[in-house]
Amino acid sequence: MESTTITAQQALEAANEAAFLTNNLWILVATVLVFIMHLGFATLESGFVQRKNTVNILFKNCMIIAIGLLTYCLCGFNLMYPGEEFAGSFFGFSGFGLNPSKADLTSAYGNYTYWSDFIFQGMFAATAATIVSGAVAERIKLESFLVFATFLVAICYPITGMWHWGGGWLAEAGFYDFAGSTLVHAMGGAAALAAAIILGPRLGKYTPKGIKPIPGHSMPLAAIGVFLLWFGWFGFNGGSVLSADAASVSLVFVTTSLAAAAGAVGAFFTGYMLFKSHDLSMVLNGILGGLVGITAGADQMGPMAAIIIGLIAGIIIPFSVVFFDRIKIDDPVGATSVHLVCGIWGTLAVGIFGAKAGLTQVGIQLLGVLAVCSFSFAFSYGLMSLIKAIMGIRVEKREEIRGLDTAEHGAHAYQVMETATYTSIK
Amino acid sequence: MESTTITAQQALEAANEAAFLTNNLWILVATVLVFIMHLGFATLESGFVQRKNTVNILFKNCMIIAIGLLTYCLCGFNLMYPGEEFAGSFFGFSGFGLNPSKADLTSAYGNYTYWSDFIFQGMFAATAATIVSGAVAERIKLESFLVFATFLVAICYPITGMWHWGGGWLAEAGFYDFAGSTLVHAMGGAAALAAAIILGPRLGKYTPKGIKPIPGHSMPLAAIGVFLLWFGWFGFNGGSVLSADAASVSLVFVTTSLAAAAGAVGAFFTGYMLFKSHDLSMVLNGILGGLVGITAGADQMGPMAAIIIGLIAGIIIPFSVVFFDRIKIDDPVGATSVHLVCGIWGTLAVGIFGAKAGLTQVGIQLLGVLAVCSFSFAFSYGLMSLIKAIMGIRVEKREEIRGLDTAEHGAHAYQVMETATYTSIK
Amino acid sequence: MESTTITAQQALEAANEAAFLTNNLWILVATVLVFIMHLGFATLESGFVQRKNTVNILFKNCMIIAIGLLTYCLCGFNLMYPGEEFAGSFFGFSGFGLNPSKADLTSAYGNYTYWSDFIFQGMFAATAATIVSGAVAERIKLESFLVFATFLVAICYPITGMWHWGGGWLAEAGFYDFAGSTLVHAMGGAAALAAAIILGPRLGKYTPKGIKPIPGHSMPLAAIGVFLLWFGWFGFNGGSVLSADAASVSLVFVTTSLAAAAGAVGAFFTGYMLFKSHDLSMVLNGILGGLVGITAGADQMGPMAAIIIGLIAGIIIPFSVVFFDRIKIDDPVGATSVHLVCGIWGTLAVGIFGAKAGLTQVGIQLLGVLAVCSFSFAFSYGLMSLIKAIMGIRVEKREEIRGLDTAEHGAHAYQVMETATYTSIK
Repeated sequence: MESTTITAQQALEAANEAAFLTNNLWILVATVLVFIMHLGFATLESGFVQRKNTVNILFKNCMIIAIGLLTYCLCGFNLMYPGEEFAGSFFGFSGFGLNPSKADLTSAYGNYTYWSDFIFQGMFAATAATIVSGAVAERIKLESFLVFATFLVAICYPITGMWHWGGGWLAEAGFYDFAGSTLVHAMGGAAALAAAIILGPRLGKYTPKGIKPIPGHSMPLAAIGVFLLWFGWFGFNGGSVLSADAASVSLVFVTTSLAAAAGAVGAFFTGYMLFKSHDLSMVLNGILGGLVGITAGADQMGPMAAIIIGLIAGIIIPFSVVFFDRIKIDDPVGATSVHLVCGIWGTLAVGIFGAKAGLTQVGIQLLGVLAVCSFSFAFSYGLMSLIKAIMGIRVEKREEIRGLDTAEHGAHAYQVMETATYTSIK
Repeated sequence: MESTTITAQQALEAANEAAFLTNNLWILVATVLVFIMHLGFATLESGFVQRKNTVNILFKNCMIIAIGLLTYCLCGFNLMYPGEEFAGSFFGFSGFGLNPSKADLTSAYGNYTYWSDFIFQGMFAATAATIVSGAVAERIKLESFLVFATFLVAICYPITGMWHWGGGWLAEAGFYDFAGSTLVHAMGGAAALAAAIILGPRLGKYTPKGIKPIPGHSMPLAAIGVFLLWFGWFGFNGGSVLSADAASVSLVFVTTSLAAAAGAVGAFFTGYMLFKSHDLSMVLNGILGGLVGITAGADQMGPMAAIIIGLIAGIIIPFSVVFFDRIKIDDPVGATSVHLVCGIWGTLAVGIFGAKAGLTQVGIQLLGVLAVCSFSFAFSYGLMSLIKAIMGIRVEKREEIRGLDTAEHGAHAYQVMETATYTSIK
Repeated sequence: MESTTITAQQALEAANEAAFLTNNLWILVATVLVFIMHLGFATLESGFVQRKNTVNILFKNCMIIAIGLLTYCLCGFNLMYPGEEFAGSFFGFSGFGLNPSKADLTSAYGNYTYWSDFIFQGMFAATAATIVSGAVAERIKLESFLVFATFLVAICYPITGMWHWGGGWLAEAGFYDFAGSTLVHAMGGAAALAAAIILGPRLGKYTPKGIKPIPGHSMPLAAIGVFLLWFGWFGFNGGSVLSADAASVSLVFVTTSLAAAAGAVGAFFTGYMLFKSHDLSMVLNGILGGLVGITAGADQMGPMAAIIIGLIAGIIIPFSVVFFDRIKIDDPVGATSVHLVCGIWGTLAVGIFGAKAGLTQVGIQLLGVLAVCSFSFAFSYGLMSLIKAIMGIRVEKREEIRGLDTAEHGAHAYQVMETATYTSIK
């Protein structure tokens, strides 16, 4: 009799362990997908900059993922998720060690291990800094940017993240941001805006004769970037379910994809209306806009709401890009339009289409957006100003004209001409 | 006593739920893999076209995935899988709503959710249109192609798909096509053939002096495309098991990989025999041919059969490419050879090596191939003719010579020369 | 009563089956990730070679994965994992058939199926040959290399692999190499070294006037390669747990990522110190060095140890690259430094930071490294010499200058100039 009872309990425990295995596995697979978004950003940004700054942007993106993971490990993770030891609602810090005890290793949250949690969140944290990299491209000093990125990931991102995901005051206020339209994208976009303002535009961009278009040097690289970002977004949004829950994750996949698709269509038509040609860079950014837009409510929307959110995000993109150019804020890749503007739109959309849709929720969403963006903007403005005063932030005029590749790296991204080959092509 | 009984049942239910979690997760991961095939097609096709048409092909591929998902959501999914409400054996349609009821959300098929089913099938549907894009490249009008792709995904693909996978007459007849050698690849290939015939060859391709080779502009892009397609094929074939069943999915991985590998080897030797040089584009298409070939029977073959199927597909490729050039059907990327010819071969191979191998099965397979390809060819021929009559399908001669990038998009794919950088390279 | 007992057992069995499903799924997903490392190698190596040899390197990488899988299927798998039929501690072979019986199909190891095991191990095997491809690039005859790669995968890799992973003498001696710092990377690196020595340097590399830098032709391709390799390494190391065990796989993800990140930082500073500029190729190889370094002990390290191992690997890279150039061993992509040198470092690090850290373990690790590297070096030296005598290994001087793309493939990787487009750019 007793043995029967025990067996049934054992069986239940085994079943729960099997579910835990699957839930944890999904967080890890999602981590891999979020990781490859860094290649997406690297190729997107290098495609959208000029040939002479390609090595520089690749170098920055390699270092950002490295710095992002290390600083999040050293500091950010525990600042953001203070756990039981300390949980103030504005700042948290539980102290940290690089070698957690064996207890930490085996301790598991509901659906995944401590380590899965860290590495998934670490990949997220690193994306916040990457968003800035595109907006300041082609003119910022490499070291200055790396210092900026380090502090952004180490301090600013975890603090605002803690407000909602760490159980802080925004969580208490009823703010909802599923996977980070505000906490990752608008936060990074506001930092990008602050940095772009302090840096000023690229030489020759805004002239008395008008705005000079500076097209990116490789559309294939840019397109590869957008597809990889969409690919990774399945992990970014899907992993944010924080389990492999079948209903939630599959719904998130549908809403994420439909919003991205609608973003392309929205940008297709608006881009054609504004520019009278089929502008690939608008469609690419339209897809990203749709993805950023759905991120805040990807688990709460039906297909129709997802399509509307993505479509509007796609429509916003060309207008936003034109707007920032009009006010002479130079953002070579459109990061501010994609991440800040569509991030804000997506966060507000939760108040319009989400589970608790209504004016009150719109108000709460607006409060969250304002709080996070203001903090991020102010933090970034202050930090960038400090770095400017101490070590300078902008490369010399001569270097900017020559290109950062030769100036900072002594290298070219491409070896176009080899005497023998070149002759034989002719 | 009673509580013990309940616990054991509960444990069994928990175990079944855990298995459901894993099965559903695999469909979702497979979806992500099939998604990235769209980047594979985008890079493959852009690598194989001329530099002056690169933006155009990238633009088409971005829009196809967007249009594919949206039209499949609006129409195709329910036409293809009519479910219980209506299931005629030639056409099905259950009516549809963009906001399914909560019942739909939680309802699950055997191994995965309603949403997982939709998004996995939606990614499949979009590939069918993508296959056409390569064959009509460098000369088709952008809008005309997008209209064509929309109707192909919305109507043609779901109807022929329904014949087999939706439980229609081909399913009843005993036709077997595991993951779509016929239903996706030959179907798309036949559409590509019809479109290429109506469009006619690129200017200067077939001259009185002979056939002019027009090499692609970037072999790295083409190679990236083929590797990504192979990568995605693990999801395309593996996900078609429709569960994470260990024996089936792992066997499918082995047969898929061995067929691809054998396809490379087959094309390597045949290509060398025919052209007396190691032709990379043949090996790349040989890999794809092997993958298309194994797709119909990937769950039924042993390693030896998989290798033979792939090898023969790889051998077919160079002959087929030469054949279509001889009859002056211009297919810039070889899509017809890869998807139509190897798709037919793979479908027939199920009758030769499959579980029910025999003359009868070969006959049934032939019937299915003929039915699907004829329908797709006729549908596409009619649709393309209609579009030609209404809005035209071919760009102007002047635009074709200049390239579609400047003509349709006002852009260049690459900025090769920047005064400063260029000078410093010299 | 009895029925209750049975139900509880059934429930337990169902739970175990669910866990098996998840474990097997992870091995398959890991297989997909390891597969894409072949695209990583293809793009990394083609980015680091000259433009005129790009088609050649892509061709080699396409054929290596094909040959690798087929030869491992025909021979290597059973030589490496002899199973019960025969298990000598130096050589194993169980005989083989391409069409294993149904028993094989359904037979499962602890956590995954026979087929999952084969395809995961087959992807690993193919990487060993790929490592060589970069070191011998730009001067080796295509056919000679393919013959070399075939025998390396068919014979050398399985024999040394069997010593440890097949239960051979190194396993008995207490040697520990989790995922192959020695068995894959140092083994491949030693083969690369032997091949590079016999081949000799590229023309014009080492002149009386000094060492001529021959920069790679595309930094974006190289960067894409490194990100894809890191991406794939989650499967390479994570899959080597041989189950989806939550604690182990998530720890492996953390150590792998932190080591890669620290490798970037190590190479960043050392590279700047040595070359006074921010050398992207050093940072890229630093990331790879960190990944190779952590591979031997990824399941045994805490975060701090992982960071130290990666950091030291990153510091080693620039010194090692300079060293091999000093002794005039020409390795166009730095494969020897990354795979051989950091592979040795990582294997020894298990003796320093691992579970059984101590002088004894360092000694055993050293023994394993020496045994495997000596065998691989000697095997490769002998094989390469034999191939040299029979069919030659080096292309003609004229061909090397012109580039292998035109000489061996009659093709160019890029079509840079098209009259119409080019003029319009001007």
